[in-house]
Amino acid sequence: MDPSAGAIQKEIKEPREDEYRDIAWGIPKFGEKITPIYINRGTVRDDDVRFEMLYNGICHTDCHIGLNHMHRTMYPCVPGHELLGRVVEVGKNVTKFKVGDNIGVGCIVGSCLECSQCKNGDEQYCMKGMVGTYNGDRKFNLIGGDQDLPTFGGYSASNVVHQHFVMKIPEGLPLDKAAPIMCAGITMYDPLKHWGACEGKKMTIGIIGIGGLGTMGIKLAKALGHDVMAITTSAHKEGLAKEKGATHFCVSTDPASMQANAGLCDLILNTISANHDINTYMSLLAKSGTIVQLGLAPAPHTVSQLPLMFTRKSIAGSLIGGIAATEEVLELCAKHNILPDCETITASKIDWAWEQLLGEGGNKDGVRYVIDIKASLED
Amino acid sequence: MDPSAGAIQKEIKEPREDEYRDIAWGIPKFGEKITPIYINRGTVRDDDVRFEMLYNGICHTDCHIGLNHMHRTMYPCVPGHELLGRVVEVGKNVTKFKVGDNIGVGCIVGSCLECSQCKNGDEQYCMKGMVGTYNGDRKFNLIGGDQDLPTFGGYSASNVVHQHFVMKIPEGLPLDKAAPIMCAGITMYDPLKHWGACEGKKMTIGIIGIGGLGTMGIKLAKALGHDVMAITTSAHKEGLAKEKGATHFCVSTDPASMQANAGLCDLILNTISANHDINTYMSLLAKSGTIVQLGLAPAPHTVSQLPLMFTRKSIAGSLIGGIAATEEVLELCAKHNILPDCETITASKIDWAWEQLLGEGGNKDGVRYVIDIKASLED
Repeated sequence: MDPSAGAIQKEIKEPREDEYRDIAWGIPKFGEKITPIYINRGTVRDDDVRFEMLYNGICHTDCHIGLNHMHRTMYPCVPGHELLGRVVEVGKNVTKFKVGDNIGVGCIVGSCLECSQCKNGDEQYCMKGMVGTYNGDRKFNLIGGDQDLPTFGGYSASNVVHQHFVMKIPEGLPLDKAAPIMCAGITMYDPLKHWGACEGKKMTIGIIGIGGLGTMGIKLAKALGHDVMAITTSAHKEGLAKEKGATHFCVSTDPASMQANAGLCDLILNTISANHDINTYMSLLAKSGTIVQLGLAPAPHTVSQLPLMFTRKSIAGSLIGGIAATEEVLELCAKHNILPDCETITASKIDWAWEQLLGEGGNKDGVRYVIDIKASLED
Repeated sequence: MDPSAGAIQKEIKEPREDEYRDIAWGIPKFGEKITPIYINRGTVRDDDVRFEMLYNGICHTDCHIGLNHMHRTMYPCVPGHELLGRVVEVGKNVTKFKVGDNIGVGCIVGSCLECSQCKNGDEQYCMKGMVGTYNGDRKFNLIGGDQDLPTFGGYSASNVVHQHFVMKIPEGLPLDKAAPIMCAGITMYDPLKHWGACEGKKMTIGIIGIGGLGTMGIKLAKALGHDVMAITTSAHKEGLAKEKGATHFCVSTDPASMQANAGLCDLILNTISANHDINTYMSLLAKSGTIVQLGLAPAPHTVSQLPLMFTRKSIAGSLIGGIAATEEVLELCAKHNILPDCETITASKIDWAWEQLLGEGGNKDGVRYVIDIKASLED
């Protein structure tokens, strides 16, 4: 397919009366590089929280959307859905936050708030479609300013978000390392919670892939009191996995290792985002176990029905998590001092960081790049 | 494949001191017809319950095993795993039953009773493998008599089963209709229970296939307080489905019907046992919904990962159910007067009944054939 297929070009006009100028790092047009640009954001309305950006984590998804890999990117595109900021202004209905609070925003800045999924705290599965923090449609009258433009993410100096989608950062969590919890942390925590790992019963939890998501998954599952099996094709990652908290280590390309670990996992979280054969991992599940697919693997799987029946195994998928669950994982991380492995950079190095993420082997040893926004503005 | 491949011929000898002669209807050798035969059963040991057989339901699986369709049938083969009887003798450790009690036995007559699955009441998923009521290996020292022979099922005048695998038949349940609850009933009830339909929250539950399993599923889901969607390729079954309790009716080959019912089901129980495309039904699931495969469909499914992720849908399988859950569904059926639609026959008509089940269209309108054992012995 033509790499530009599906890309949509929008125009940022002079700020209207209900908008203000903001500085961002974005891609002005399809095919261009990331560069500092001016954008407009809606001024604070009754339920809004405006905050200055302190840090923003760089997620693999940022590259895919920024480069139009999903063929539905609106330009100018300002990525970033791991936002860490400090409140500078609140609307008159805002009760949860005050000026000076440290807050976070994750992948969601809007949802209908009325459907069964939203009411259940699963805004990410809103029946009317959630609004992504960037490249989202400004729906539900939750995002101010020019409604024809997409939402703009955290690669910027500030943001304005409806209070429902803003989260308090617990005391003691280092601000430069908390940002990736809003995406990588909740992506691993929500399936743990949904499939019973927060109910006190000890489980054996497999984590496939020892990258940014995988290491967070190992730490969270361990903090929740479980045995953790790290599952990877990289035999040399055993030390790293055990250092993060894994009690079992399985090399999926080694038949002896697969045999030794067969049938042990009550739950497997699979972070592989490239095409793969899911059947490779089914044998690691215990009877009644569930494997949860978390990565954007495009090729379909071939799945036999009889083993599912005879062992009551489930194949499921999961996408980030809701606001309440994100607040829970922030608390859990603060309590257990669980921090993503981060490397702080300035915005001038975003291109370089994306190259690392897109290159052979992905992000080395699960390090998450985090943009220091204040330092970037001084650059 | 050669139809006889995998068939194993065993020899029934003269009864030993710890065995007694029993009359059964079985297939003496691969390729032969069902005929009255003599078998031996172990005499009562400390934990055993011996009972005279009153009724035995005929399950589709009986034909498949009897005819060696799974290529692992041991002959002589005496099928039957929907047993309804009356206790005539109990061992000295038996506390749960006394002579004269009406009892049932389902698909399971043995399991290790020690693994996590057994301890959780899921004997059907025993980590060491459950013992089927017929064509099973006599493992775990739970079945008396010649250990080299397979277990013999309910097409017979009596049986001897360890008390753990015997169930009380609640007062008021008609004995001639209770037998199929032990297989068809529990097959539908256990996934309802496992996936949250016994927790008081109202759901919309889809049932694919309006045969013997399907009609039981409709009745059970309705009794549990849910909205029920009958899903079928047979538009003419709408009246039948609604009579059984369905509130929604979906014709899966009709795009307008599929569109009208899209996204409604929190849980779908799929009883189709022939090959089919599971993706046909995924659109009927609500977000966070689960489809449970219950049929012996041999061809693998092609499943895309992205829709699973973006809607947190699960694909699972389920096989019958454990002893405690079977007792629960018997109670539920007694309380709500839920009865399988049965047609009583004598053993001389078993061949005819199998032909109906194996013929085009399967068992008409979900009728379950039940052998009246007493009448058969007098034939």
